[in-house]
Amino acid sequence: MTTQESDASQSEFALIDRIIARLGDAAASDILVAPGDDAAAWVPVGGAVVASTDTIAEGTHWRPGLLTMADVGWRAIATSVSDLAAMGATPQVVLVAASLGPAVTLEELDELIDGMAEACIAHEVKVAGGDVVRGRSTSLTITSLGGARLDRAGRAMVMRRDAAQVGDSVAISGSPGAAATGLRLAERGVEISPATTEALTAWRRPRARTELGLAAENLGVPCAIDVSDGLVQDLRHIAERSGVGVELDLDALPLPTSAVATFGSEEARDLVLAGGDDYELLLVARNSVLEALEGVTIIGRVVETHPGEVVVRQVDGAPYPIPAGWDQLRSWPLPQH
Amino acid sequence: MTTQESDASQSEFALIDRIIARLGDAAASDILVAPGDDAAAWVPVGGAVVASTDTIAEGTHWRPGLLTMADVGWRAIATSVSDLAAMGATPQVVLVAASLGPAVTLEELDELIDGMAEACIAHEVKVAGGDVVRGRSTSLTITSLGGARLDRAGRAMVMRRDAAQVGDSVAISGSPGAAATGLRLAERGVEISPATTEALTAWRRPRARTELGLAAENLGVPCAIDVSDGLVQDLRHIAERSGVGVELDLDALPLPTSAVATFGSEEARDLVLAGGDDYELLLVARNSVLEALEGVTIIGRVVETHPGEVVVRQVDGAPYPIPAGWDQLRSWPLPQH
Repeated sequence: MTTQESDASQSEFALIDRIIARLGDAAASDILVAPGDDAAAWVPVGGAVVASTDTIAEGTHWRPGLLTMADVGWRAIATSVSDLAAMGATPQVVLVAASLGPAVTLEELDELIDGMAEACIAHEVKVAGGDVVRGRSTSLTITSLGGARLDRAGRAMVMRRDAAQVGDSVAISGSPGAAATGLRLAERGVEISPATTEALTAWRRPRARTELGLAAENLGVPCAIDVSDGLVQDLRHIAERSGVGVELDLDALPLPTSAVATFGSEEARDLVLAGGDDYELLLVARNSVLEALEGVTIIGRVVETHPGEVVVRQVDGAPYPIPAGWDQLRSWPLPQH
Repeated sequence: MTTQESDASQSEFALIDRIIARLGDAAASDILVAPGDDAAAWVPVGGAVVASTDTIAEGTHWRPGLLTMADVGWRAIATSVSDLAAMGATPQVVLVAASLGPAVTLEELDELIDGMAEACIAHEVKVAGGDVVRGRSTSLTITSLGGARLDRAGRAMVMRRDAAQVGDSVAISGSPGAAATGLRLAERGVEISPATTEALTAWRRPRARTELGLAAENLGVPCAIDVSDGLVQDLRHIAERSGVGVELDLDALPLPTSAVATFGSEEARDLVLAGGDDYELLLVARNSVLEALEGVTIIGRVVETHPGEVVVRQVDGAPYPIPAGWDQLRSWPLPQH
């Protein structure tokens, strides 16, 4: 990099131009008003806008030694888009706001943008706008925006947390627990090998289940959530918002190969129940509807008893002790006067 | 606060419920999918979605001693909505992502939410969703979302930065420089008095010019920007994106009473040219169009010479030296390897 480039890159607006150029095909140059104006503008597919915003902060959501900046960029995009997948919405654009701490270099910013661009292309979304500021620490806030159809009554055709009904079945996509396995392996400093690739990739480069979400919504699945903080913990949100109880069958849980190979079946079950970060979808619907979906496993049912609670049953019917999921605030509560 | 309330408020999801409850009428309970699900959903007015995201970080955009948390909350909302005002769009909802540093107390969070709620009600927007995380420092990212009409060709009917044409006039709303005056007064520890209220309020509680933006767009003003970093600096974005030059008449600048009273006319002029934070609108259009708008002052014109540059002319035609605007990145550049 020449001195001239270096100087030019150090004003806020030159830096934004640099980021837009580096995003390449991941920049939304084809929308009605593209990045670079006061605001972006586009037409939402369907009729309703569907929007979600998420912040990940260094030290809370990632540790620099374990993830590259490119991984952080990928994860920020994928985990935000996952919220739209959980609604059965069609993702269209993302807005990226970055607060860069004192130690972040221009090269690390480039790496971050590259990881975001890769994730945008993989998830078929484009960056429509953003903001970049210096701060005392590094955090990223991604807003994912998409569309959903409206029904004849003007309601958004999306999957909600509050739509579980007694008698419904509960299904999970893929093999949750792989990402939690990957985190543990990374903490131990395990190298990538054929045996560890599945888990490390699941953790470093999660994928939002957009196609599954759309397929489920189209089939009439009324209720879903993505698993970010732990299967049972996230399922509890459905139980609470819907005012129902949920029972899971311990033996029905799909166990990820990597977790069983590394930690054995028993520990793998706990990683499935409490590990987050996989961004698999929990789907709640009539059993026949769930059976029509590919790549999901039916793991339980919605019951009238113990509303707001999730109980995991062993083969003999006895409740299985549920490990705690992840709550960044519980472990670091706000001080009070 | 009882111990039980204290405990209950310390999980992420209980805290989100607490925030939604505290927002009261400022929470978007009336949209298609309200806060509390994976994503929010609503119908955009017009046909196009218009969206902007902005981060403000403690230490960069505010110093705790000078602004209350309620002021910070207000400013975060108002300055984000201002981006939609500058497009001539109709603001509808905001998404709020908060990263809370180690020292933030629950009471300060409540204060922040109260300031946001006041600003939402004043700006007729509602909070449709958000995220709250603990981080190593405090920052807020607000995403403002609204709508704009589409013309017959499917283009969004908004004011853009790249639409200034040679022969157009340039106008500014209100009296920019009041907020910069307020900041200087606050730094000096000046108490609120009849003489200082205008400036301190302009700085602590700026208002987005939504109605003016809508009126301007309706009258056919093609080009606008809001003044956040300094009148000349922001006008330069229009000159650059439009590939035109701009000339301003020094004597035409509207000077805020508070600035003249406190610092004299000469310094007041520099505060108008370089002070940001007022969120007034710069509008560029044919002279007759601008003259039909209330509350704006014509201060200059678009020229063919010196494209990308803004020149301020004194009465004798000589160029006036322009003070630098605000650039948080130039004063704190990213380190390079």
